[in-house]
Amino acid sequence: MALRTPEEFKESLRKLRPNVYKFGELIEDVTTHPATRGTVEGHAQIFAAALDPEHERLASTTSNLTGEKISRYLSIMESAEDAMNNCKLKRLIYNLTGTCTGGRCAGWNALNATWATTYDMDQELGTDYHQRLKNWLKQAQANDITVSGALTDPKGDRSLPPSQQADLDMNLHIVDVQDDCIVVRGAKVMICGVAAANEIFILPGAGYREPDEDYAVSFVIPKDIEGLTIVETRHPSDMREFEEGFDTPVKIGGITQAYLFFEDVRVPKERVFMCKEFKYSGAAVTNFIMPYRAAIGGCVAGQGDIMAGAAALLARANGLSTRPFNERLTKMYINNETTFGLGVAAAALGKKHASGYWLCDPLIANVNKVYVGSLPYETKVLAQDIGGGIAETGCMPSFKDFNSPKHGHLVQKYLKAASSAESRTRVARLIEWLTVGAGIPGCMHGGGSPEGAKPIIRANAGLERSVALAKRLAGIEEDISEPEKKK
Amino acid sequence: MALRTPEEFKESLRKLRPNVYKFGELIEDVTTHPATRGTVEGHAQIFAAALDPEHERLASTTSNLTGEKISRYLSIMESAEDAMNNCKLKRLIYNLTGTCTGGRCAGWNALNATWATTYDMDQELGTDYHQRLKNWLKQAQANDITVSGALTDPKGDRSLPPSQQADLDMNLHIVDVQDDCIVVRGAKVMICGVAAANEIFILPGAGYREPDEDYAVSFVIPKDIEGLTIVETRHPSDMREFEEGFDTPVKIGGITQAYLFFEDVRVPKERVFMCKEFKYSGAAVTNFIMPYRAAIGGCVAGQGDIMAGAAALLARANGLSTRPFNERLTKMYINNETTFGLGVAAAALGKKHASGYWLCDPLIANVNKVYVGSLPYETKVLAQDIGGGIAETGCMPSFKDFNSPKHGHLVQKYLKAASSAESRTRVARLIEWLTVGAGIPGCMHGGGSPEGAKPIIRANAGLERSVALAKRLAGIEEDISEPEKKK
Amino acid sequence: MALRTPEEFKESLRKLRPNVYKFGELIEDVTTHPATRGTVEGHAQIFAAALDPEHERLASTTSNLTGEKISRYLSIMESAEDAMNNCKLKRLIYNLTGTCTGGRCAGWNALNATWATTYDMDQELGTDYHQRLKNWLKQAQANDITVSGALTDPKGDRSLPPSQQADLDMNLHIVDVQDDCIVVRGAKVMICGVAAANEIFILPGAGYREPDEDYAVSFVIPKDIEGLTIVETRHPSDMREFEEGFDTPVKIGGITQAYLFFEDVRVPKERVFMCKEFKYSGAAVTNFIMPYRAAIGGCVAGQGDIMAGAAALLARANGLSTRPFNERLTKMYINNETTFGLGVAAAALGKKHASGYWLCDPLIANVNKVYVGSLPYETKVLAQDIGGGIAETGCMPSFKDFNSPKHGHLVQKYLKAASSAESRTRVARLIEWLTVGAGIPGCMHGGGSPEGAKPIIRANAGLERSVALAKRLAGIEEDISEPEKKK
Amino acid sequence: MALRTPEEFKESLRKLRPNVYKFGELIEDVTTHPATRGTVEGHAQIFAAALDPEHERLASTTSNLTGEKISRYLSIMESAEDAMNNCKLKRLIYNLTGTCTGGRCAGWNALNATWATTYDMDQELGTDYHQRLKNWLKQAQANDITVSGALTDPKGDRSLPPSQQADLDMNLHIVDVQDDCIVVRGAKVMICGVAAANEIFILPGAGYREPDEDYAVSFVIPKDIEGLTIVETRHPSDMREFEEGFDTPVKIGGITQAYLFFEDVRVPKERVFMCKEFKYSGAAVTNFIMPYRAAIGGCVAGQGDIMAGAAALLARANGLSTRPFNERLTKMYINNETTFGLGVAAAALGKKHASGYWLCDPLIANVNKVYVGSLPYETKVLAQDIGGGIAETGCMPSFKDFNSPKHGHLVQKYLKAASSAESRTRVARLIEWLTVGAGIPGCMHGGGSPEGAKPIIRANAGLERSVALAKRLAGIEEDISEPEKKK
Repeated sequence: MALRTPEEFKESLRKLRPNVYKFGELIEDVTTHPATRGTVEGHAQIFAAALDPEHERLASTTSNLTGEKISRYLSIMESAEDAMNNCKLKRLIYNLTGTCTGGRCAGWNALNATWATTYDMDQELGTDYHQRLKNWLKQAQANDITVSGALTDPKGDRSLPPSQQADLDMNLHIVDVQDDCIVVRGAKVMICGVAAANEIFILPGAGYREPDEDYAVSFVIPKDIEGLTIVETRHPSDMREFEEGFDTPVKIGGITQAYLFFEDVRVPKERVFMCKEFKYSGAAVTNFIMPYRAAIGGCVAGQGDIMAGAAALLARANGLSTRPFNERLTKMYINNETTFGLGVAAAALGKKHASGYWLCDPLIANVNKVYVGSLPYETKVLAQDIGGGIAETGCMPSFKDFNSPKHGHLVQKYLKAASSAESRTRVARLIEWLTVGAGIPGCMHGGGSPEGAKPIIRANAGLERSVALAKRLAGIEEDISEPEKKK
Repeated sequence: MALRTPEEFKESLRKLRPNVYKFGELIEDVTTHPATRGTVEGHAQIFAAALDPEHERLASTTSNLTGEKISRYLSIMESAEDAMNNCKLKRLIYNLTGTCTGGRCAGWNALNATWATTYDMDQELGTDYHQRLKNWLKQAQANDITVSGALTDPKGDRSLPPSQQADLDMNLHIVDVQDDCIVVRGAKVMICGVAAANEIFILPGAGYREPDEDYAVSFVIPKDIEGLTIVETRHPSDMREFEEGFDTPVKIGGITQAYLFFEDVRVPKERVFMCKEFKYSGAAVTNFIMPYRAAIGGCVAGQGDIMAGAAALLARANGLSTRPFNERLTKMYINNETTFGLGVAAAALGKKHASGYWLCDPLIANVNKVYVGSLPYETKVLAQDIGGGIAETGCMPSFKDFNSPKHGHLVQKYLKAASSAESRTRVARLIEWLTVGAGIPGCMHGGGSPEGAKPIIRANAGLERSVALAKRLAGIEEDISEPEKKK
Repeated sequence: MALRTPEEFKESLRKLRPNVYKFGELIEDVTTHPATRGTVEGHAQIFAAALDPEHERLASTTSNLTGEKISRYLSIMESAEDAMNNCKLKRLIYNLTGTCTGGRCAGWNALNATWATTYDMDQELGTDYHQRLKNWLKQAQANDITVSGALTDPKGDRSLPPSQQADLDMNLHIVDVQDDCIVVRGAKVMICGVAAANEIFILPGAGYREPDEDYAVSFVIPKDIEGLTIVETRHPSDMREFEEGFDTPVKIGGITQAYLFFEDVRVPKERVFMCKEFKYSGAAVTNFIMPYRAAIGGCVAGQGDIMAGAAALLARANGLSTRPFNERLTKMYINNETTFGLGVAAAALGKKHASGYWLCDPLIANVNKVYVGSLPYETKVLAQDIGGGIAETGCMPSFKDFNSPKHGHLVQKYLKAASSAESRTRVARLIEWLTVGAGIPGCMHGGGSPEGAKPIIRANAGLERSVALAKRLAGIEEDISEPEKKK
Repeated sequence: MALRTPEEFKESLRKLRPNVYKFGELIEDVTTHPATRGTVEGHAQIFAAALDPEHERLASTTSNLTGEKISRYLSIMESAEDAMNNCKLKRLIYNLTGTCTGGRCAGWNALNATWATTYDMDQELGTDYHQRLKNWLKQAQANDITVSGALTDPKGDRSLPPSQQADLDMNLHIVDVQDDCIVVRGAKVMICGVAAANEIFILPGAGYREPDEDYAVSFVIPKDIEGLTIVETRHPSDMREFEEGFDTPVKIGGITQAYLFFEDVRVPKERVFMCKEFKYSGAAVTNFIMPYRAAIGGCVAGQGDIMAGAAALLARANGLSTRPFNERLTKMYINNETTFGLGVAAAALGKKHASGYWLCDPLIANVNKVYVGSLPYETKVLAQDIGGGIAETGCMPSFKDFNSPKHGHLVQKYLKAASSAESRTRVARLIEWLTVGAGIPGCMHGGGSPEGAKPIIRANAGLERSVALAKRLAGIEEDISEPEKKK
């Protein structure tokens, strides 16, 4: 099969067994249900982009397995340029959808990370995981599927390792290994874009030790596999998605995050890429987060682009020039280019793994994660600041009031400014959606928290080299060491 | 009447003619309707506080008109201590309700500002506005009513003054002056707490000139006055307020903001405090914003207190000590104390107006407004950061899913950590409510925007004095002036 | 004696035994020697201010011991207003001198702190320290002397307490107690303004335990006491003070910091205020730092005033209007008012100690210390930014080159802009002096470091109260405690 | 000639006619005179690096003119990798010298910018400037010379263009064009590293119009050309460079900035690269500043590396572990990697000019300039914070006092902590040197000020594209334009 059309993509989702729930009810068709249709439309744009001459260079690429044209989201990143295109593609897709299409990027990163991890495992352990992954990937590319990625376990009491939890299911684990499959139980939580996914790629948690070996497990499954129940989470103002009108202003994008419950799911052997090799669980995650933390800078920049545009648009709709806002608009772009640029830099300064996978620079990727935990929030505040009171909390009457036979004419009369009342309302709702509404991505904790990035920065920063440079400059030869720990 | 009980307060609201709408429908009883009961409960706590030995010192005071014990929200602020108590009271009420009770504080500031403005008008123009205000205020105190305050006009095209708008109703204005009343038309928008108010105090916009004299109008009206239609605005996740359960976690507080439409409302003369005296429209607003911009630091500190507490609580519910979060918790408190402290300082450095009203220091009050436009947002980000993924966007299944017969046991199993699933969910929902949910106050633009505060800072900062000090220190006697403007 | 004149002050310094050194040489007369005359001139302005109708209200006050008019720097602070005047006075003196006059404010704080500490000691231990202090203070006021304050010990290895240091002299300590005196040995380092002091007030370090009791010592001594050697430290560009001309642009202010070496100094009993009462060493320091950390906000604001003025002046000297710099000038004033305002707030929110001493609020005082460790640095950067390249590092030829017979005419020709070359150079040198030159005060570590302020903020912030508020709002009754420490 | 040795480099400086002055006196030998020997030693390390196997890959490269191995500082940057190596090389050289070696990098950027500008001029005007440049460059590479670059004119009254200044010499200009040469008069000010240069590359100011055509001039000259007088400027604590000992702690690096006075200097035609072609003056400067503003991020990161090392070293010398400083050390590295990384990103996202020159991305390069105007200052504050009081302002007795026969033993006794007194002093002096001393580079205004970068960011950010994206997402088709300017 060649690259799929948006319609073929949607059709494939409709064919899956319904197993996604929200508000206590089963979603029969994710492509039309109010809770999921927005994210499906967002993901559909990715298929459109791959077929669009303007965007195909970013949205598609050539398979390193078959030489055929494939979705970039199913490719192996093998060069700095590939890694930079990760940043650029994410920025583009945010530009087009206004928010996260997590059913693609986390899956993409997961399969790339596993490309490297399985390579090392096979080299060192004599396993055949890497070949399994290749086989699966060829099919995935041929069928042009969407793959979401799932890492986060519920974890239970965070002060205890998996094997010491009161409830051993608090982290996803292997309960049985059979000849042709493994059986897994537990959950993955806060997983993006599953509603729009054909398959789900599972990574283990990090840093497991021998007692936790059952938790060292990685595999890929069809979304509708037996035993898997998916419950979508709430997000801000999600009930508006069930309403008519423009109070949810964006129809061509949306984010979902789900809890995945595995009740003794049987995963066929050829879809398993780690099975108890606990020593590699750290690498599995590290290989995931470095490119992720680099490229997430593209995501938030892409949303920042929209915020700057929406803020400028609302200023004009209010009858104002953007000139008095130049300082603030410039700050918004500084924030955008910082996270985007550092993502590009982490790509540019990376190095090639033996498997061919391009490893982004861990120091700069983690620096970027710290910025992703602050700059986009500043950008949001600036958008609200420029937009004024109606943008800050979406402080306008509802669509129903806008159209009320009784007082709708008053609402419209007084919402009109330099543009029509409807346009002004739509753009104010867009800012609300982006900053305190349903368009908010989980950028703080997605790919790990900023605080977790700091020790990696500290470890990679080369402090001892700096100390040596300082000593040389100051002409000091005395040994001045870290003091020993005292009781 | 003495200080009212919460129940008497609610009863008084029920007696008013219903004229508040949301989602296209009339709210028959604001004390029980899901859209308004939260804010009514919040305001009810203020009445409880005035009767509570722990809080009465802040929540009540002695009338400068009658010597009787009254709600502090109906008092005239006459000293630095009174002005500091404004900051402290706002912080307390945020502590108790989690959010804004705008039906009290804006009204309080409005009547205080008008105390000073009418005093000057009467002195200079020979009018009797100040006496009218005193008469009304005595009654208001005696009946212990809630008064909300309304300033913001729709404004239309912001680049044009009121009298040059295509639609002259874009700012509230006098359409007729009759012997016993004035007739007004237009709207006030984004007005807090009207749902919980007995009466509404109207201030004019600022800086009007002679052609705009019809817009220079100030008065107080019963909320249910003939010709006034009130439409409540949306706020984030407001549909949840119609749901059962804890997805709206706070039941004892809530914020509303409304659009007020005046269709030829007749305001009795004795309730009018400005009628075309355009030269005083600037003072009317300035007298309002100085104490407002000082005391709003107490508001956001009070909400910040809750955020710090909720963040620490969620960390513990996750099984973590708060120790690794000390740096961030400390930063939250630094932010809280900054806006609170600068409010106190603006009070301490103020001076007495001839009317007895205490004028807060405009320089520090406006500096505080700038901080209010940034520090609380940083505090929110820290709360989300500490709270983790479930707090960031409230990334948990709905209350319905939590209790689903089919999968509720799974949701609860995996949401449990060091506390029960319910407690952990409740506190995560609280952080969501405070940071991206229905608890968000309009602190950026309430009382004017930070950007509008900057020119006032510049004007009050004493740059020429600084220049003189610098010249003296550097031993410069040459005259070095601002260059003349060039064509 | 009434308030002294500047000349009487200088005369009193000349009468002291010379024991101050710099660059290996004894300074015979501190009032004329290039290394010390600047700070003496700065301190002399304080005497002038007390006699100046414009400034006497701040610079002088009434003695609580005698009812006579005294220098405010020798008064006991007994009210919020007194504590606010501390902030205001410091800002004024920075305005007049451009920098720190540490020979007054640390001494003032030290004697106030000791007022409270000795009161408690006498109450609890039956000692007569408080009476000794009163006796001394009456004389100090009568003679209108300058008293510098000294806290900081060399400390040696910071990971060890005083009594476990390899060299026991690393903290100042009592080596003998005799009938009429004590004998002390050790050093105090980085002590401000000693060159301009008549006497020096010594405080102990904080947190001493029983084995360290010899280190719990407080007293006041004449600067020229036998056995005391004072070595002035370097500061940036200090050699310029030996040059002619305006490369040191300020002649009426200057800062000195000295190392004080005590070689078995005999301190008369009536001048000793703590002698081995180690349990009070913590209070001695705490009583010092709270008002200090509040009022230091006035210091840095006062220097910030000069920086804003100098930046505006240089812009004009460059031929530019200050308008395009409004955003940055406003930021400078925001910084100034933040530290000044929080100092005022800490004063306003303080409480009275049993001794009569006004204790500033520790929470806000320590928040201010954190800002003092960052905002003034931002203000400096803004001054350099506005000033341009010549201000940034003082990038101009020397005074000698300015007047060179060979090329002085070229230097002057090309330094001229909208003002004379000399004025432009003087103001650029002033910015250099304030930001990277001899005018820099030690505001980061003076009164303790910002990092040391954070635990105090954390301890005073009331986190558990916040947690309780959050639980109440979210309707949580479950006990959710800090987890127990694990091995 | 091959790559020169450090000694050959110094020898070449000694052969030049002495024409550099400081403190009113002629410097006979820049390699030994205290005012210039530091920077010469710094530049000498560049020659050593090119011959050092560890550093040659960065410090040298292959000539695109001759294919021979040359100093990278004399190469044409033709690829993203070349532009990244600019960032890396600058970081390395700051690591080795602690400060700026402006005699190389500005010259390098100037000749690269001129490579592109002259190419365009020749293409469009039929001139032979590009060939002249090639000829000169071949010789420069062959002789391995140091070339400093000079842009900044004195400018006089900044509100007026060059041709309207009261004194026409306020910008460097052509006074005569002769057959074999041009004659120039005026000055260039604040020029880095001239003391260590063999030749000086002159660029015009930007944005000249026809009346200013005489000011559109670019050329390269031997430093000792007839008619050129060079006066070195002061920098913080520069007199210490005349002292013995470690109060100037760095002997292998130093920065100089000079004023260059041109009194009718005759520049041979073959060394002239622009002569009145005013339309290209903008490009000449733009081509310079883009790579400069990218790569300056490497400079400040390189100095930041030293600051982090010195801060850690001083903490250890004080007896402390670096662990409690992890948050702050991490912040220092975040700052370093931000400016370095954005420089790399600007290189990676650049594009090739028709001349072969690699143009860095202007958006990210200018974003970086904004950061260079703030982050390094924050890094300095952190270094002072970690280092403690002795680091903050170098608050220690002088080298003379350290060695005083009278009290040197006391100074040393009390400066000793966990390291020797000398080591502790040296590293504290290093922090002083880096943050308020002679090691400070002019990073705020070097290559133009941050404020000047903002309009370029605004212009390149693509706001209208953002607006279109926002409109598409919000479903708005109405034209909402910037309002027309009103009178």
